[in-house]
Amino acid sequence: MSFDRLHQLIRKTKNPTVAGLDARLEYIPPQLVKECMDKHGENLEGAAAAVLRYNMALLDALQGIVPAVKPQAAYYELLGWPGVKAMHDTIQYAHDKGFYVIADVKRGDIGSTAQAYAEGWLGKSKVGEQALSAFDADCVTINGYMGSDAILPFLDLAKEEDKGVFLLVKTSNPSSGELQDMVAGDRQVYTVMADLCKRLGAGTEGECGYQTLGAVVGATYPAELRELRRRMEKTFFLVPGYGAQGGTAQDVAGAFDRYGWGAIINSSRGILCAWQKAENGAERFQDAARAAAEAMRDDIKKYVTIV
Amino acid sequence: MSFDRLHQLIRKTKNPTVAGLDARLEYIPPQLVKECMDKHGENLEGAAAAVLRYNMALLDALQGIVPAVKPQAAYYELLGWPGVKAMHDTIQYAHDKGFYVIADVKRGDIGSTAQAYAEGWLGKSKVGEQALSAFDADCVTINGYMGSDAILPFLDLAKEEDKGVFLLVKTSNPSSGELQDMVAGDRQVYTVMADLCKRLGAGTEGECGYQTLGAVVGATYPAELRELRRRMEKTFFLVPGYGAQGGTAQDVAGAFDRYGWGAIINSSRGILCAWQKAENGAERFQDAARAAAEAMRDDIKKYVTIV
Repeated sequence: MSFDRLHQLIRKTKNPTVAGLDARLEYIPPQLVKECMDKHGENLEGAAAAVLRYNMALLDALQGIVPAVKPQAAYYELLGWPGVKAMHDTIQYAHDKGFYVIADVKRGDIGSTAQAYAEGWLGKSKVGEQALSAFDADCVTINGYMGSDAILPFLDLAKEEDKGVFLLVKTSNPSSGELQDMVAGDRQVYTVMADLCKRLGAGTEGECGYQTLGAVVGATYPAELRELRRRMEKTFFLVPGYGAQGGTAQDVAGAFDRYGWGAIINSSRGILCAWQKAENGAERFQDAARAAAEAMRDDIKKYVTIV
Repeated sequence: MSFDRLHQLIRKTKNPTVAGLDARLEYIPPQLVKECMDKHGENLEGAAAAVLRYNMALLDALQGIVPAVKPQAAYYELLGWPGVKAMHDTIQYAHDKGFYVIADVKRGDIGSTAQAYAEGWLGKSKVGEQALSAFDADCVTINGYMGSDAILPFLDLAKEEDKGVFLLVKTSNPSSGELQDMVAGDRQVYTVMADLCKRLGAGTEGECGYQTLGAVVGATYPAELRELRRRMEKTFFLVPGYGAQGGTAQDVAGAFDRYGWGAIINSSRGILCAWQKAENGAERFQDAARAAAEAMRDDIKKYVTIV
């Protein structure tokens, strides 16, 4: 249960990284875009077809190298419902190829609304006598500003469906401190969120020792990352901010436990856009993505050994 | 600019309320559901067709009475991409009928990701030479836990596109205090969010005097609501929590300025599910919805006079 499947896939690939699938049209080799536009038209359907086509080719290239992928909902919603359909189809294809799928949706709502989000992204939608999967991700990211009302519906469903949840704790962006670093009593706001995460997740440990409720903690604040690792011994970390945002392999090393377990590091543009920096990259974009994923894995390996 | 159009619609209808369009299948009269399932099958398409059909009938019934509607994304995502298409079609139909549309998406992300959400929900998606609307809402709700990086991309686009944004400040749910009421220095976290809202919105006042960046403040905390009204004189309030959650007309009165301006009160199930309590409600669901909307308007009118 919990993050066991992700944990096993990380150990199998010896690679604690997740590839962000955040394709904007300008990140996609032009010949793929043109082909899809010629077929579907210069419209949202054509754009969504190009994104799906690119994602499928990336998934083919990364299979066996990267254990997990993380489609970011914003880039699909940008293309309207055809984009959202492309996200659905991407999740399905990723499952066919054996990837663990983290839907990066950062949903934050309460009660029956949170329940609807959880059912849509992790669970089943009841339609008459049917129980149908709307998106069927393995895991979602959520925002807890509204408190435990915004967390428990996801966590409860994740427990039932054997899936995972990552709660935003300390994010990687420059202004994350405006709210998260405020000190109330003896704790920062992000520490309060961390403690809430730990408390609500208690008792949901899987065989790997980690709880079903994980935490998003940015690579760009390595001191806080190490502090939170100590504070939240059973909380799996999803770590954004490596690469483009400035986080290094040394910075992210603090996210792991002594076995090299309990964390997964995200890279989006580093892999997605690798073709733009490679020789004949547009034609050989799969090789470029694979090489970038392998380089990231090897970079982290310098500091982290997975038992 | 800013909330001027919403303000004018409120003054025209003399009704500072917004109808939530949060349809789950069980909120829809069974004959509509059956008709759509018979046509499309007992699947996500059939369910999404029933939701759209119900929304269109509600919009017909509420036209001229309620100035604005607020589809809640969770209930559409619950039905996968066909549901998201139904949300898109609902927004379009609401515009045809002259409603102001608040997309209740509570998105919270940063930088280029927030930009993609903003372009998708409020702006245009660039596809080749085309600039296409993905959802084209008039306004979105957002979550600022990640700081101003999660707010500015929406606000900047809203300014350009003459649209609006509501930032979560103090939410209506029971556990909202877990984070939002923490006291840091001389201010609660929600007050810090309020001050951030006010500061980032400064200079974006429309003719109605209100800024392009509004705030979500729950009806269930009337003391905080009055305090925030005083603190944020130029901030338009979206107020959930009236009715089912326990907020009364007297409670929400504190959201308005002395002219009865500057706030809009949400009701979702009170209007959506009114047919369930009415005689022959399933057949006369439009009458039931209209009567509930009028009753809510008249209830608030006891405490608030719109100049």
